[in-house]
Amino acid sequence: MNMSGRCAACKYLRRRCPSDCILSPYFPSNDPQRFTSVHRIYGASNVAKMLQELLPHLRVEAAETLCYEAQCRIQDPIYGCVGVISQLHQQIQDTECQLAKTRAEIALMMNSDGQEPPQAQVDQQI
Amino acid sequence: MNMSGRCAACKYLRRRCPSDCILSPYFPSNDPQRFTSVHRIYGASNVAKMLQELLPHLRVEAAETLCYEAQCRIQDPIYGCVGVISQLHQQIQDTECQLAKTRAEIALMMNSDGQEPPQAQVDQQI
Repeated sequence: MNMSGRCAACKYLRRRCPSDCILSPYFPSNDPQRFTSVHRIYGASNVAKMLQELLPHLRVEAAETLCYEAQCRIQDPIYGCVGVISQLHQQIQDTECQLAKTRAEIALMMNSDGQEPPQAQVDQQI
Repeated sequence: MNMSGRCAACKYLRRRCPSDCILSPYFPSNDPQRFTSVHRIYGASNVAKMLQELLPHLRVEAAETLCYEAQCRIQDPIYGCVGVISQLHQQIQDTECQLAKTRAEIALMMNSDGQEPPQAQVDQQI
């Protein structure tokens, strides 16, 4: 491959991009930021090693998630994407709390009516 | 510091552990696996660099989340902890779906009764 057709990684590292470059399919030259993010967090050789250890058809997803985690770590150097996980746990807790509250409303209505919940009807409609 | 008091990182890298070792407080010698995980994914020098860029009191949390992400990536080399994020998104969707269903049950009961939901009473009780 000639020097002008190098991938973002080889361009950044100022090296020739071989035709079998492990990084080339996942780090195109038109998105240099994508490579600099993973390089900053993992280092190019660790990224190459992690991709190399996977079967070729699994590498796209791995490169994608490595980029996501690297970008999270750059944005939040303390918590990285573990910060996202914490927020989602909080959101689950909030939604479960709303659900418990709504179920308590139904229970209250049952008590005041002596009525069964219209479960079967709802299941058909939703 | 003498050679026997080295942290897990310096022990692994077979080097002297200086008294101001950046990794030493977060990678004690009694938990060598903790260091080997982050070393495998990020490399010791990237971990040291990321910790160095933070104020000292923020480094404990950063080391903790880096260890967590590294362990996730070792367990799931394709998705890493992004796999956890996907599962949590699914859990939120499931809970929101249950909530919508439960609210629909209330709406049905309202329709059959011509009654207002006992919101105020529930809020007081929960």
